[in-house]
Amino acid sequence: MTPDAPTHLSEEEIINLVASLAGGAGGDLAVGIGDDCAVLGGAQSGLVVTTDLLVQGVHFELELMSPADVGHRSMAANLSDLAAMGANPAYGFLSLGLPAHPQAAFVSQLVGSMVSQGRTYGLKLAGGDTVKSPQVVINLCLLGAMGNLEPLLRSGGRLGDAVCVTGLLGGSGAGLAWLRAGRDPHDPDAADAVAAHCRPVPRLEAGRALAESGRVHAMMDLSDGLASDLPRLARASGLGALLEAERVPVAPAAAVVAEALQGDALGWALAGGEDFELMFTCDPQDVALLTDLVMEEAAGLAVTQVGRLTQGPGVNLKKQGKEEPITYMGYDHFRESAP
Amino acid sequence: MTPDAPTHLSEEEIINLVASLAGGAGGDLAVGIGDDCAVLGGAQSGLVVTTDLLVQGVHFELELMSPADVGHRSMAANLSDLAAMGANPAYGFLSLGLPAHPQAAFVSQLVGSMVSQGRTYGLKLAGGDTVKSPQVVINLCLLGAMGNLEPLLRSGGRLGDAVCVTGLLGGSGAGLAWLRAGRDPHDPDAADAVAAHCRPVPRLEAGRALAESGRVHAMMDLSDGLASDLPRLARASGLGALLEAERVPVAPAAAVVAEALQGDALGWALAGGEDFELMFTCDPQDVALLTDLVMEEAAGLAVTQVGRLTQGPGVNLKKQGKEEPITYMGYDHFRESAP
Repeated sequence: MTPDAPTHLSEEEIINLVASLAGGAGGDLAVGIGDDCAVLGGAQSGLVVTTDLLVQGVHFELELMSPADVGHRSMAANLSDLAAMGANPAYGFLSLGLPAHPQAAFVSQLVGSMVSQGRTYGLKLAGGDTVKSPQVVINLCLLGAMGNLEPLLRSGGRLGDAVCVTGLLGGSGAGLAWLRAGRDPHDPDAADAVAAHCRPVPRLEAGRALAESGRVHAMMDLSDGLASDLPRLARASGLGALLEAERVPVAPAAAVVAEALQGDALGWALAGGEDFELMFTCDPQDVALLTDLVMEEAAGLAVTQVGRLTQGPGVNLKKQGKEEPITYMGYDHFRESAP
Repeated sequence: MTPDAPTHLSEEEIINLVASLAGGAGGDLAVGIGDDCAVLGGAQSGLVVTTDLLVQGVHFELELMSPADVGHRSMAANLSDLAAMGANPAYGFLSLGLPAHPQAAFVSQLVGSMVSQGRTYGLKLAGGDTVKSPQVVINLCLLGAMGNLEPLLRSGGRLGDAVCVTGLLGGSGAGLAWLRAGRDPHDPDAADAVAAHCRPVPRLEAGRALAESGRVHAMMDLSDGLASDLPRLARASGLGALLEAERVPVAPAAAVVAEALQGDALGWALAGGEDFELMFTCDPQDVALLTDLVMEEAAGLAVTQVGRLTQGPGVNLKKQGKEEPITYMGYDHFRESAP
């Protein structure tokens, strides 16, 4: 490290730096760093891989959530990356950092919750590592199988595509705000928001059905929020986008919490992150068909068109008739204001 | 977590608990938790997977090592797990936790060192995750390909097998002791020991050649030291073992450092860990043949027989004519005395 003029990097800059060191896709790697999953090629063709690192105090707080909730969210976040490709979960690898004097009940609840959720979707925990760490650290690396389908990438969007999302947005952000405000997690008014935060449901059936439909052009999961994830998809597709605020399916639970805490439900829906819903693009005339498909295959899950892909440049947010460049509201771990 | 009578777990107990929750091998998983790598089955047959979590202050100290050294060691430790199966490295996934204000030079050196070492052995860094963390956290998850070979497991040892190791032992432990004592890392007397600690060489050529020979019964890498790794191999094979102290190939560098620091070179060789040499078992009459094979395929790397597999129970250490049950000297992250 040079003592003079050190360069501080943003999260995106670190990812770009690592990607440039790694050298991009090619050879036996169909898709490398930058999508929800890497897509392997050659003898491993049809395999997709994702990994997520979660650190106590950064990604979760044990004061606010049970060990089982933490396990559930960690697994859901990773399964959601597989869903975003249209993959079927196959194998999981868990690295666990634990402070001194780990307790059996804590490990049982944390890991048991991961294992049982994974099993629901056909995932087998196949290996891992356990080490000491000053705080709880969880790394999951999941392998998914595409079978005979092509994975859905962020880069496949086409000019004029409808931009759609599954489910409701903002629930997770509202639930986290509720917990951080020290409110009763069992309050029935906030129960849906708290559940959205602590027990998100990865959209694996929807992701698989959308991949099988052959009508989806681009897909990713909403882990940081529409306001930063849509620009990522648009950029990967070489396009811009228009997002219509009035169309965003804000979770009623977020509205209830917003009223109680004087919070911003639309803000949570756009930038709260961690809703783990799917965002995809398709020909506008296929929206109805795909809506019906998801409703049927994913137990009544809704699909809502929230905007469309444009020539750009950039992504605009249309709100109360006014169209403005979207402010980057997503989560950058290395911004000054990040928690 | 119950407030009364909490159960503190050792590292081995945590691994056993996670393994019991995960449910063991079967179906599309040939080998699950407990070997150096998981061995996948079904459509992913021939793939092996390993993952390792390293935490600053527990596994490495940035005061003692350069970022490039840390990157090298992290990658080497994981590559060594692939070597232990006889696999060829294929894909790597890096999760990186970094404190606030990450610097470009630090990330470049750390990741660049991983990438270039991986590339030497055919590994492609294909994905990852970057997050904020109070200290540097590194998780690598590597996929290796067996091609048409069967992976070498810890459990294949047979009664009467010779127990052999590659290379020299104790160098890494001596190097770490040297650095921790605040001695000059560039002192020529300690250079080999410091290099053994900071720049271990994963034994991929040797591992592959041993797997190809068809004569090796069991194999694993020495990450915690003979004193704890041999008991693991013996137990996995349902046997005991006899380890002969006088046969252990103690690194000359460890002897030099031991003299300077009044340390114990044999102790480092048995329990210092992180030498990342291979330990394997074979029919005693094949030792010479395999020694020649490794020397030829792995640029002069030595093979030494250090003991044999016995009926047991347990593992005995023979030293100065006396045979005694081996003390468990390996590294348990959750022992009271662990760093």
